[in-house]
Amino acid sequence: MPAGDPRSLSLKTLDVLSAFSTDRARLTLSELSRASGLSLTTTHRIVSDLVGWGALEHSARGGYQVGLRLWEIASLAPRGLPLRELALPAMEDLYEATHENVQLAVREGLEVVYVERLTGRGAVRVLTRVGGRFSLHSTGVGLVLLAHAPDEVQEEVLAGPLRRWTDRTITDPARLRATLAEIRQTGVAISDRQVTDDALSVACPVRDRSDAVVAALSVVMHADGASARAAAPAVRAASRSISRALGHPGAQRRPSGLPG
Amino acid sequence: MPAGDPRSLSLKTLDVLSAFSTDRARLTLSELSRASGLSLTTTHRIVSDLVGWGALEHSARGGYQVGLRLWEIASLAPRGLPLRELALPAMEDLYEATHENVQLAVREGLEVVYVERLTGRGAVRVLTRVGGRFSLHSTGVGLVLLAHAPDEVQEEVLAGPLRRWTDRTITDPARLRATLAEIRQTGVAISDRQVTDDALSVACPVRDRSDAVVAALSVVMHADGASARAAAPAVRAASRSISRALGHPGAQRRPSGLPG
Repeated sequence: MPAGDPRSLSLKTLDVLSAFSTDRARLTLSELSRASGLSLTTTHRIVSDLVGWGALEHSARGGYQVGLRLWEIASLAPRGLPLRELALPAMEDLYEATHENVQLAVREGLEVVYVERLTGRGAVRVLTRVGGRFSLHSTGVGLVLLAHAPDEVQEEVLAGPLRRWTDRTITDPARLRATLAEIRQTGVAISDRQVTDDALSVACPVRDRSDAVVAALSVVMHADGASARAAAPAVRAASRSISRALGHPGAQRRPSGLPG
Repeated sequence: MPAGDPRSLSLKTLDVLSAFSTDRARLTLSELSRASGLSLTTTHRIVSDLVGWGALEHSARGGYQVGLRLWEIASLAPRGLPLRELALPAMEDLYEATHENVQLAVREGLEVVYVERLTGRGAVRVLTRVGGRFSLHSTGVGLVLLAHAPDEVQEEVLAGPLRRWTDRTITDPARLRATLAEIRQTGVAISDRQVTDDALSVACPVRDRSDAVVAALSVVMHADGASARAAAPAVRAASRSISRALGHPGAQRRPSGLPG
C-alpha cells in the first residue's frame, strides 16, 4: 500500500489479524501483506510486534498462526466463553438426553456466531463450528435471534438476498416475516432441512436479567428421527435454565426444583 | 506516559488489550489508560479503533469489554479451539464415564493454560477456568506438561519459587524432580490434594504426529472417591484417542476398534 494509507497503525495491526480465517489459518508474511494491503516492510514490523506479544506464533509448518495469548485475552469476551461457562451445565444435560448436536449462538450484526457446540459421535453432520458464522435466516438459532433482533436488523435481512441452502430454505421475505412472528409467539423455532437435506434443528431464546434475548440454544438432529419435534420441551427447559443462570427474573420465579 | 514511549503503536494497541483479565473484564477509559501506561488521548484513539474493528465493545453497564470479533479471530489459534474440537469426542466419553471435571490444557511458558473443561453438576470445585492459567508444578495436567517440557523450562521451574497451595503441594525441588521422572516413566500424573484439600486429578499426555507432548488431559474428582485411582485407565485411553486424532503414529497402529 502506498504512503498515505489513512489507516492508523492500530487498525493496520488489527487488519493483519483479520487476514486469518478458517480456510486461512496459517499465512506467510507475503500472504499477510497481500491480505491486509500493507507493504512487506510495514507487515514485517507489525508481525514482529504481534509475535513478541503472543498474538501470533510461528507455525511448525512455516508461516504464522494465531497465538494462544490472543485466545486467552479473547476468552474474556462476555459473549464468548463466559456465556458458555454459564450455559454449559444445561447444555450437557441436553446433550446427555439427546446425544445430538447441542449449540449455543449469539447474533453479531447480520450473522450468527456459534459460541459452543457439543457433538455426539453419531450426531448428524452440521456445517458450523465454534467461532464460526452463519446466516440468520436458515438455522434454528439464526431464526430465533432474527425474530428477536431490532426492527432495522430484521428489515435489512428481509430486504435480502436470502441465500438458498436447500429446497426448503425460506427465501421469500413475506414467508420469512410470518415465520418470525410465529417464532415470537410460540417461543420455538424449527428449521426442518432448511440448511442441509438431512438435519432438523429446534431452537429457543436465552434471555438475560432485562428480558432481552442475548443468545439462542438448539439441538440439531437427523430430520427423519421420530423424536425430532419431541425435543422442543427439552430445549425449552434448557434455555430457561440458562436464562435463569443469567439472572432472568421470569425464570427465577419458578420453583427451583423444576427444569425451568 | 510521556513522549518518547519507545513502544510502537501496534504494541500500545496490544497493551490496551492486555489490561483485561478475569478480575478486570470491564474497564473504563481511564482504567485502560492507567493499566497500559498511555495518555488518555492516546488510549482514546486506540480504543476507538478497537471498538470500530470489534476487538472491544461498549459494555451495557458502562466501560468497555472484550468484543466477539476478537474472540472469532482468536478461536483460530491452533492450540485453542481447533485442538479442543479434535479432543471433544474423547472428552465427552470420559465425562460420561465419570461425571467429574474433564480438563484439557497446554503449556504456555511457565504456566498451564486450560483449553477446555467439561464439568458435572456434582463435580468437585476446581480453581481453574477455560482460558485461565495455573502453575505447572501442582495440577495433574501441569505436572504432565512440565515432565515433558524442554530441560530449560524444567530447570527454571525447579529453581523456584514453588508456590504452596496445600500441605501436600510439592515445593521441594528434589522431590519434584523425582516426581517428574516417575511421570515420564508411568505416563500418568496424579495430583492428590496438591491444589485444594478435596480434589485429586489424574492426568496423561496428549502427543502429536511427531510424538511431541502438545497437551495434557485430566479428570479432577473428589479425593475421597473410592474410584479415584481407578480412573487412570480411562484417562489414558481418552488421551490416546486424542493423540490418534492428532495423527500420532503409535496410537494409530493399534486396532481402531479399541479405545487407544
